[in-house]
Amino acid sequence: MSEATQQRVRNAADALNYVPSEAGRSLSTRSTRRIGVLVSDLANPFYPYLVGPLHDELEQRGYRMMLLTERSDDALATERLLDHSIDGAVLTTATTGSALPDALRRKQVPFVFLNRIDGRDGADSAVVDNERGGRIVAAELAELGHRTVALLGGSTDTSSGRDREHGFVSGLADAGITLPAARIRRGPYDFDTGYRGLTELLDADPDLTAVFCGNDVVAIGAYNAALREGLRIPDDLTLIGFDDLPMASWEAFSLTTIRYDLPEMARAAARLLVERLTGETDRSARQVAFTPELVRRGTHAPPTLRRAWRV
Amino acid sequence: MSEATQQRVRNAADALNYVPSEAGRSLSTRSTRRIGVLVSDLANPFYPYLVGPLHDELEQRGYRMMLLTERSDDALATERLLDHSIDGAVLTTATTGSALPDALRRKQVPFVFLNRIDGRDGADSAVVDNERGGRIVAAELAELGHRTVALLGGSTDTSSGRDREHGFVSGLADAGITLPAARIRRGPYDFDTGYRGLTELLDADPDLTAVFCGNDVVAIGAYNAALREGLRIPDDLTLIGFDDLPMASWEAFSLTTIRYDLPEMARAAARLLVERLTGETDRSARQVAFTPELVRRGTHAPPTLRRAWRV
Repeated sequence: MSEATQQRVRNAADALNYVPSEAGRSLSTRSTRRIGVLVSDLANPFYPYLVGPLHDELEQRGYRMMLLTERSDDALATERLLDHSIDGAVLTTATTGSALPDALRRKQVPFVFLNRIDGRDGADSAVVDNERGGRIVAAELAELGHRTVALLGGSTDTSSGRDREHGFVSGLADAGITLPAARIRRGPYDFDTGYRGLTELLDADPDLTAVFCGNDVVAIGAYNAALREGLRIPDDLTLIGFDDLPMASWEAFSLTTIRYDLPEMARAAARLLVERLTGETDRSARQVAFTPELVRRGTHAPPTLRRAWRV
Repeated sequence: MSEATQQRVRNAADALNYVPSEAGRSLSTRSTRRIGVLVSDLANPFYPYLVGPLHDELEQRGYRMMLLTERSDDALATERLLDHSIDGAVLTTATTGSALPDALRRKQVPFVFLNRIDGRDGADSAVVDNERGGRIVAAELAELGHRTVALLGGSTDTSSGRDREHGFVSGLADAGITLPAARIRRGPYDFDTGYRGLTELLDADPDLTAVFCGNDVVAIGAYNAALREGLRIPDDLTLIGFDDLPMASWEAFSLTTIRYDLPEMARAAARLLVERLTGETDRSARQVAFTPELVRRGTHAPPTLRRAWRV
């Protein structure tokens, strides 16, 4: 059809108040051109930075993004992803105990892991090399001379939490530094995990000189708790984050953190899924791992003997 | 059907790998039980705080939220909202020039304005009393003794930007304070508007003692620009925000701002829309306006003669 003809059809449809019925089109083609994106915590500033590039990449390839903001990948979310209203799914908040990936495999709904994996084989994924990121932080802290360090980590039922912790602990061990269980706190990747966790760590061990935080949001929670305690960053305490979100570079924090190409990671997940849907790829699962690097800003320093900051 | 029978049906369906076809159900009932929520900038921390309560309230009333994260309410978004894939829509980022509300009215798709309105009659809406919020800030600054004040406002094609500015200017006028055009900067409600805007304002008028920011995100951008300039807040400069997002209460900012019940505003919009869909309401449009109040934290103070802070 020529452009002019297409325009005439559109004008006629508009004049008749006609809109194509998506439901009718779906039944005839057995395709919805919709991708479900599951995010369990949209209020976490991390996810919007994944969702934007995902949306744009899917759009460019002719798919619509349907954002499902479930609190967890519970039965309801599972049902929604399996009711034929989507062609495929992007899972951003999978845990190692998630039932959803297996349900999708069973129903043969194509999906891709983004940011986290469930630790079982057989699915495409786009992640950062979390273990390497943890090792980089350990090496930096050791090089600065820290010995009494702590971890405010993500939950160990997330691949990111588990792998960052594993890399960190291994890296410390290589430098002859031990990390006792009493200096590890874990929780959701949110402000409160950092805010409450730092206070607990300092209560348990006032000699602490450095904390590796599971991500930037946790680090910013810890930073604000440190301000409340009257600690100077980095003179009194070194804090290192993970992700390099825009707020990490705000003057108020100037957070030293681990950077990787977060938008490109989201786009890679979209491409993996679309290639799976269109049959452009063979059947074996592909893992794309992005390389982390340290961004040195203003929250790291050698350890100093802290003045008596608590009575 | 008894619970046991329902369970047997579910088990049988599961064993046969059966899932209900949503497209089939939509064609037979002419209802999708889906609500489109249009958000143009999900990376703006304001929106996730609307989206969570919206999701929960809609869910509780048996509707699914379909989040459309378009960059603007362009033709594509319009088409998506009109293709029979949703029963109704929540518009959170309408501008006074938006074509979408009229398109929805024409196609008789029920919708509600949340947070912003397009300024024309005939639609349900849940907003904060923006004009009153602007007046409250003006009265506070006048009371503190500020005379050389500025505005880092939202765009005047948004009802929130226009009404906050109008309330602010009127309130200043009541106190005998004029706000010249040179001390007004407007832009999107984002970090950069505050960050770059404050620098421009200070370049133009180094005697500035107080700035009303269009929302908290803008205020935090301005706060960080002030840190970069070496200004002390609030000794050298008073900053006041709008919305009372969680980050406003972080120790790093301790932002004085305008608070209202943001989650309840989102839930109210969901209820207005659902009542419209189920015919629980008559045809006249309803406006729900939430009351703003000032939260005094740490970014306001009387004006002081600033030390020479710039060469």
